[in-house]
Amino acid sequence: MGRWQPDSRGRLQESALALFAERGFDQITAAEIAERVGVTERTFFRHFADKREVLFGGSDYLKELILEGVVAAPASDGPLDAVVRGLQVAAVLLGEGRRDLARQRQAVIRANPELHERELSKLADYASSVAGALRQRGATDVQADFAAEIGMTVFRLAMAQWVESNEDTDLPSVMQRSLADLRALTVDT
Amino acid sequence: MGRWQPDSRGRLQESALALFAERGFDQITAAEIAERVGVTERTFFRHFADKREVLFGGSDYLKELILEGVVAAPASDGPLDAVVRGLQVAAVLLGEGRRDLARQRQAVIRANPELHERELSKLADYASSVAGALRQRGATDVQADFAAEIGMTVFRLAMAQWVESNEDTDLPSVMQRSLADLRALTVDT
Repeated sequence: MGRWQPDSRGRLQESALALFAERGFDQITAAEIAERVGVTERTFFRHFADKREVLFGGSDYLKELILEGVVAAPASDGPLDAVVRGLQVAAVLLGEGRRDLARQRQAVIRANPELHERELSKLADYASSVAGALRQRGATDVQADFAAEIGMTVFRLAMAQWVESNEDTDLPSVMQRSLADLRALTVDT
Repeated sequence: MGRWQPDSRGRLQESALALFAERGFDQITAAEIAERVGVTERTFFRHFADKREVLFGGSDYLKELILEGVVAAPASDGPLDAVVRGLQVAAVLLGEGRRDLARQRQAVIRANPELHERELSKLADYASSVAGALRQRGATDVQADFAAEIGMTVFRLAMAQWVESNEDTDLPSVMQRSLADLRALTVDT
């Protein structure tokens, strides 16, 4: 107890997800998470502002990565291709994380309407920032909104597929496949 | 005061939207809405379970309409076309309403993160029900999820365009144009 151990943040996150999955997000306190890891509650709050940050921490950084990817896309890229480039940067980062933890996180969020609404709102915020970046690249308002929203949908569905899949596929490849699925679906018939 | 007047529900809705827009959703009580219309608070609660229902009432009915449209789509329709058929049924109904009220409603929802999250969550629920209806029509899981989500995106962006536009276009036509915009955007380049 209280002795310094490496990667407290990672272990706190892992324990928190396990506890949320076992007993529900609302039932768990920061003190319980800390106790399971063998650290003090104060240590928990040194790493996370609150319980929700265990699930949503890092999302500003992710948004920055996506936006940088969009901005860096070649001028020849259409709006949707530029969005996908940005999302691929995020997919590489997220895909390096542990899939079992991503799966637990997703299950916890889906089981709790308030968390689910927050997740959707976070993605809507990404879409709105991405649309802004596309307008700066010269996309019209309609193109920018559409490409950003469609891109986020591809991203969200790819994440869900990757998380649920037992195949040994990496997230960026799943994203590519999702984009191809989308294109197949929207071909005018 | 208290005298019976026609269409209390419509007048309550109109006053509520005006008050929400003027002073913010959280600042307004049911009593104030009723007072502006000249009815009692009790009359307000005969028409609406709470303030939020002024904004979100009727959404179950709308979902049923969308689902009926999807189910009734010809077997030859692909998944996305079937979704669009369902959404067109909803667009016809919504497009008959007053655009100025729809515009106020949207502004109120956008100004309040909690309401915005609820709106997103409602649309996510539509998408999930629509995906179920598509699976019953023989779509694969991936096709169903994608077509449902993409359809809801088309719907949402078309609503936003219609509400903000000063053109004399009807909502179903805006939906058709949005679908064409989407197809143009996803053409493989």
